[in-house]
Amino acid sequence: MNAELEKLLKFNEDGLIPAIAQQHDTGEVLMMAWMNKDAIAETLETGKVCYWSRSRQSMWRKGETSGNQQKLIHFRLDCDGDTILLLVDQVGAACHTGRRDCFFYEPTKTGVDIISEPIMSPEEMYGKK
Amino acid sequence: MNAELEKLLKFNEDGLIPAIAQQHDTGEVLMMAWMNKDAIAETLETGKVCYWSRSRQSMWRKGETSGNQQKLIHFRLDCDGDTILLLVDQVGAACHTGRRDCFFYEPTKTGVDIISEPIMSPEEMYGKK
Repeated sequence: MNAELEKLLKFNEDGLIPAIAQQHDTGEVLMMAWMNKDAIAETLETGKVCYWSRSRQSMWRKGETSGNQQKLIHFRLDCDGDTILLLVDQVGAACHTGRRDCFFYEPTKTGVDIISEPIMSPEEMYGKK
Repeated sequence: MNAELEKLLKFNEDGLIPAIAQQHDTGEVLMMAWMNKDAIAETLETGKVCYWSRSRQSMWRKGETSGNQQKLIHFRLDCDGDTILLLVDQVGAACHTGRRDCFFYEPTKTGVDIISEPIMSPEEMYGKK
């Protein structure tokens, strides 16, 4: 990671920055996850998106178990240096539920609708390790 | 806010959820900010996006001082209930720098490029209170 980028990055108290993944050509917002300094450096170096898993407290190389990798097209940082936008090329489903993207709950006046269906089964995603 | 939505929302230790604002028709990711329960309720009720300002520790009715409001088109929640996607109609600039969106830093091998220019001056944004 170069010094100018490093100076701009503003990590939270846990050493993390939220990263939004957007499909580069269709504009779909796929998911949001977190990156630490090592995940950012690896992503920029390899061109494959790597997050930091807060639940597992380990590097999360997206698609490592599911095959649903994210190829990095553009890496962008916001005005405050505290949010990342990743323009990616997403293989298959971004969401662990097998949906293309994670944003499938939409509230109504009285409840919450589910607005998309899985494009892959759990077996397709996690059976092919 | 209805009970089903309330059950899905997963706030962090500060009572906040990150919210991504995306222009509903072009797909531009405009900005990311934070919402607390009151900001979510107000946004859903009024159809105008309201965030929680962490720096000012107060409700942040987007566009209140700049006029650059965000009209809510769709409110979506992700699979884990811990990230919101707001599809909005953004008036003018979303970014406090006068740029349409906040994601204008792009790292190169040796430095960081600025990839967009302001569409409004600070005077245009903050002089017309």
